[in-house]
Amino acid sequence: MSARIIDGKAVAARVRAQVATEVAEFTAQRGGTPPGLATILVGDDAASAVYVGGKQKACAEVGIRGFDHRLPADTSREDLLALVEQLNADPEVSGVLCQLPLPGHLDGVEITNAISAAKDVDGLTIASAGRLALGMPGLRPCTPSGVIELLAEAGTELQGAECVVIGRSNLFGKPMAQLLLQHNATVTICHSRTKDLAATCRGADVLIAAVGVAHLVKGDWVKPGAVVVDVGMNRLDGKLTGDVDFAAASEVASAITPVPGGVGPTTIAFLLRNTLEAARAQAGVA
Amino acid sequence: MSARIIDGKAVAARVRAQVATEVAEFTAQRGGTPPGLATILVGDDAASAVYVGGKQKACAEVGIRGFDHRLPADTSREDLLALVEQLNADPEVSGVLCQLPLPGHLDGVEITNAISAAKDVDGLTIASAGRLALGMPGLRPCTPSGVIELLAEAGTELQGAECVVIGRSNLFGKPMAQLLLQHNATVTICHSRTKDLAATCRGADVLIAAVGVAHLVKGDWVKPGAVVVDVGMNRLDGKLTGDVDFAAASEVASAITPVPGGVGPTTIAFLLRNTLEAARAQAGVA
Repeated sequence: MSARIIDGKAVAARVRAQVATEVAEFTAQRGGTPPGLATILVGDDAASAVYVGGKQKACAEVGIRGFDHRLPADTSREDLLALVEQLNADPEVSGVLCQLPLPGHLDGVEITNAISAAKDVDGLTIASAGRLALGMPGLRPCTPSGVIELLAEAGTELQGAECVVIGRSNLFGKPMAQLLLQHNATVTICHSRTKDLAATCRGADVLIAAVGVAHLVKGDWVKPGAVVVDVGMNRLDGKLTGDVDFAAASEVASAITPVPGGVGPTTIAFLLRNTLEAARAQAGVA
Repeated sequence: MSARIIDGKAVAARVRAQVATEVAEFTAQRGGTPPGLATILVGDDAASAVYVGGKQKACAEVGIRGFDHRLPADTSREDLLALVEQLNADPEVSGVLCQLPLPGHLDGVEITNAISAAKDVDGLTIASAGRLALGMPGLRPCTPSGVIELLAEAGTELQGAECVVIGRSNLFGKPMAQLLLQHNATVTICHSRTKDLAATCRGADVLIAAVGVAHLVKGDWVKPGAVVVDVGMNRLDGKLTGDVDFAAASEVASAITPVPGGVGPTTIAFLLRNTLEAARAQAGVA
């Protein structure tokens, strides 16, 4: 058996095109004022600059106005908080994100939580996490939202499915589990202390790996016919590779995401979707 | 094999005695001002009045000052919110809880979320749920905290243990899963849509049932040697009974909580503990 490859680029392109259409409608309804995304980058970390550049470029492509704030590495806590407050208050800014990690003298958790819940398009504040945990409407973290879209694309029935998530980060594993639970899946969260990871994975109808260990998940960890989602982004022998042994797993799974070209592209697509949703909520339109 | 009975009354008594000792120390340090718990009861639901009365009595027994607010059933939203605001601002009030359910014209979620996070001793606000989800310090829901204490009493090793929680309520199942995860357990959350509940339960080292269906969990759902915690409170043939077939399960489990006398008594003990913790945080003492 050879698994169907879930094409993350195609899914992302579809979501972006849909967002672009809806952004155009929204902008027209509001007399030409588009949704706006403010990004904050402190310092000159090269990888972070690439990420922020990618987000700003994606905004431009779908008609979202970008506000690209770049601050020196020695920016004070007070100045950074003042900028966040200014963006929270700016009616042209629908969403705010502060690219992490921050330089060592700044507290990423504090700065993130200064972003108003209404503009928290990364879905990482206490308020957004609480709303997700309680099943209340709110902005959800982008990568788990992308995974839900990929699973829908693959035609995966989540209701009653045994879903195993490897990894329990605040950024991905924990919100992923909450979203799966809202889709009526039975959810198991595994991590480094899990006793028999292979056996637990073998019970999964849907197996989602997000641990950052190249090829941790072997082919014989995959239940025949399972759907496998690989959130890992590791460098192995100079190549980008996931947490799953793709070659072996794709012999057993019914569908699988590749790395690259799987989960990665969908994350920015859902950042754009969140920015539009935030703009709608602020404008009082559902 | 006959399981050890985990004595919830004894655990609760020990926690209460410890809280009483710490309350006395705290009160002495603050020149005679004890922690304070404000309860709000709207209307005259008999069961709610019994619960609130029990909480106030428990406060008195450990030296916490009680503020017992009872409002008529037709209290307006505005008046109720004004009372919550007043209690949020009152320095003698360390914790605030509004007994649910509220009369139909009032929104329990809105009123609960009007309670300041610092005084949210039930741990049910968005802010408390978010802090729990993100692994940040905060006030935790009382019943899951009680279960953690019962498991500790039973000598249960949670790290790496396969824990299965049946039920995904905001009040219990979801925060229980988060607390188990923080104790490094592998956690599975099951519910009404779970396909093969019996099989999933049979894999559990620790099985926690909170669904409100009398005797749902059969003896042969329990892995030999497992620890079983029964959070159910059901009426069956006029008797209070849990979600677990206690007689059958106790033949297989290594330890089990009874109903009544298991989880129930620990909930109020952790409400008292939360009130003390809230008072300490407000006084700036860890």
